[in-house]
Amino acid sequence: MTALDPPRRLLMGPGPITADPRVLQAMSKQLVGQFDPWMTAAMNDTMALYRQVFRTANEQTFLVDGTSRAGIEAALVSLIEPGDRVLVPVFGRFGHLLAEISERCRAEVHTIEVPWGEVFEPDAVEAAVRDVRPKVLAIVQGDTSTTMCQPLADIGEICRRHDVLLYCDATASIGGNEFETDAWGLDIATAGLQKCLGGPSGSAPITISPRAADLINARKHVEAGIRDDSDTDVGTRIASNYFDLAQVMDYWGPRRLNHHTEATTMLYGAHECARLLVEEGLDTAIARHELHGRAMLAGVRGLGLEVFGDVEHKMHNVVAVEIPDGVDGDRVRAELLDDFGIEIGTSFGPLHGRVWRIGTMGYNARSEAVLTTLDALEKVLGRGGGVAAAQEVYA
Amino acid sequence: MTALDPPRRLLMGPGPITADPRVLQAMSKQLVGQFDPWMTAAMNDTMALYRQVFRTANEQTFLVDGTSRAGIEAALVSLIEPGDRVLVPVFGRFGHLLAEISERCRAEVHTIEVPWGEVFEPDAVEAAVRDVRPKVLAIVQGDTSTTMCQPLADIGEICRRHDVLLYCDATASIGGNEFETDAWGLDIATAGLQKCLGGPSGSAPITISPRAADLINARKHVEAGIRDDSDTDVGTRIASNYFDLAQVMDYWGPRRLNHHTEATTMLYGAHECARLLVEEGLDTAIARHELHGRAMLAGVRGLGLEVFGDVEHKMHNVVAVEIPDGVDGDRVRAELLDDFGIEIGTSFGPLHGRVWRIGTMGYNARSEAVLTTLDALEKVLGRGGGVAAAQEVYA
Repeated sequence: MTALDPPRRLLMGPGPITADPRVLQAMSKQLVGQFDPWMTAAMNDTMALYRQVFRTANEQTFLVDGTSRAGIEAALVSLIEPGDRVLVPVFGRFGHLLAEISERCRAEVHTIEVPWGEVFEPDAVEAAVRDVRPKVLAIVQGDTSTTMCQPLADIGEICRRHDVLLYCDATASIGGNEFETDAWGLDIATAGLQKCLGGPSGSAPITISPRAADLINARKHVEAGIRDDSDTDVGTRIASNYFDLAQVMDYWGPRRLNHHTEATTMLYGAHECARLLVEEGLDTAIARHELHGRAMLAGVRGLGLEVFGDVEHKMHNVVAVEIPDGVDGDRVRAELLDDFGIEIGTSFGPLHGRVWRIGTMGYNARSEAVLTTLDALEKVLGRGGGVAAAQEVYA
Repeated sequence: MTALDPPRRLLMGPGPITADPRVLQAMSKQLVGQFDPWMTAAMNDTMALYRQVFRTANEQTFLVDGTSRAGIEAALVSLIEPGDRVLVPVFGRFGHLLAEISERCRAEVHTIEVPWGEVFEPDAVEAAVRDVRPKVLAIVQGDTSTTMCQPLADIGEICRRHDVLLYCDATASIGGNEFETDAWGLDIATAGLQKCLGGPSGSAPITISPRAADLINARKHVEAGIRDDSDTDVGTRIASNYFDLAQVMDYWGPRRLNHHTEATTMLYGAHECARLLVEEGLDTAIARHELHGRAMLAGVRGLGLEVFGDVEHKMHNVVAVEIPDGVDGDRVRAELLDDFGIEIGTSFGPLHGRVWRIGTMGYNARSEAVLTTLDALEKVLGRGGGVAAAQEVYA
């Protein structure tokens, strides 16, 4: 069996995307013991960096060891007790995922839906909150399946008014679109590295408000083998050990509870992803995603292609492009990959076979990446006008 | 915030240990899309390599994205339905963990225990199986908390005789001690990279027998958003989405179900860990761990230190050393770390403050690592005889 030797790809799909080389370099560094003073300081640094990424003062800001949906499940299983009412506004695949995970947590799940390609008006959400009286409202900010970006400030306001816990998954959007944990009143937010943060999948940053942390700690059951005399079981035990955020908070906190063995290499990567973003400045990074997203949008329109969904509400970092009649969408994707080494995305559910999804995010929110992709699309589709339209945006 | 610059450490604790530089180099390679033909081929290669590591013909052999306990929880939550009887023979901290996770899966959990430092006799296990009539027997092979390595061949035989599913966690032991998935009749086995495999924590290799896979697939509920017309919900839904092995098997299998986004960098690392082991040969690697473990054992005895537990049954790759009366165990560990850059381990539960745990595993199952550690211990303890005793083993 020979060593893995990945082909060179320009990943312009909805994520994962090409990692920033600085992140990969950080991940090649040697390991240190999990309770080494250097390591616990690195963990504290990582927490501080992600407070900036999430725009929060939450002490409880750290990493869940797993892919983005590990963060989602940790948040939901730690918040939800069996029988709790959870409201999920669904505007794409990942809304369905939040509902599905909540069901597995034995919540009483209520959903409201808008057609794919739209977002919710605050009034519709407030009406459902009045009707359902949920303990938790769970929503994604950006749903890559539709490219839509749900405005959250009003929903945060509604949740505070009705004393509802607000959970948001920002995996697809954070770093490339405005995201405000504290200003919007979010109780828990989770993310992943593989979109606008420019890293690989495998680590899920999370932030938890003091009131959510208190609720979770009111269910703390420290596992046998590491509990001490001060531990008394309280509340309903969280249904997962791995995702038991009460214990995970004690792992990242001063107690340094020996819950799991931190995925050190992923932590090195997550640290560098956040450092890149903080160095650039969040506002600058969002503006960069807006610019290159706008250029890609102009480019695909310049190619004479239609864009799916409510463009006013699309995320900066991804666009869904209608596959023209008579064009074999999979053939186009295969030619882009085989001849040009460029990957664009396919779709799910109602959009399967109907749209391509093209990303401009993280390390690939760059003009060369945008123009190279449009140039290759011109060749494969036998059309012109894409590159020129994008160049006009840059001019 | 400056870049992380880890200090040079020689990690001689019970894991994580210093990663093999080849693994870190593999992890610095650029990403490829998750359904790129190159990537799916790399996933298939990884499955084939881990079949060799686990010594199994199980088709269902892949990675769970998370630390070792992610693999444990995935196995247990996918096997256990609420009310199922689970028997856990506990001989250290990680036995308690299996019981605790099974409880959170709402099993009816029964435990049997031997004192820390011992392993189970087959007769005791068979008596408990007769008594409890469990659906699942869950056990660890090596419990790093005590250093003990439980013989499993007889337990596999007992489970087959009584039609019990046998789950085993081999995180601490695999690669450094004999481990036979098929020959011992194991239904599911899980592992981690951070011990004898010489990689970082963050990926959990798993193998699943055809009968266990059938049981899990009899509970398949494909999530909304990616399900198709062929999907019909069957059996009791698995209580976790992230750890739903029915879906994860379809992600790694020909269906390529878009469940999660594979942690590509961790996969590169896991692939290289397995490749190192397969290149060396499993028997050779086990013999290497036996040799360097024996040298370390002789060395600590040469220093006049007592060894904890039933040495006949200890894992090759770790030794628990009694802290002598009048010696401050934490001071010794701090001096080793600060003056020599060497980490050895502390302990849990009944052994807390009583023993150090010293590992010789993976990349650090090397004579230089053993002798350097013993030499530093001689200095810090103000004793002699450690290095010479180990050198005699090597002579």
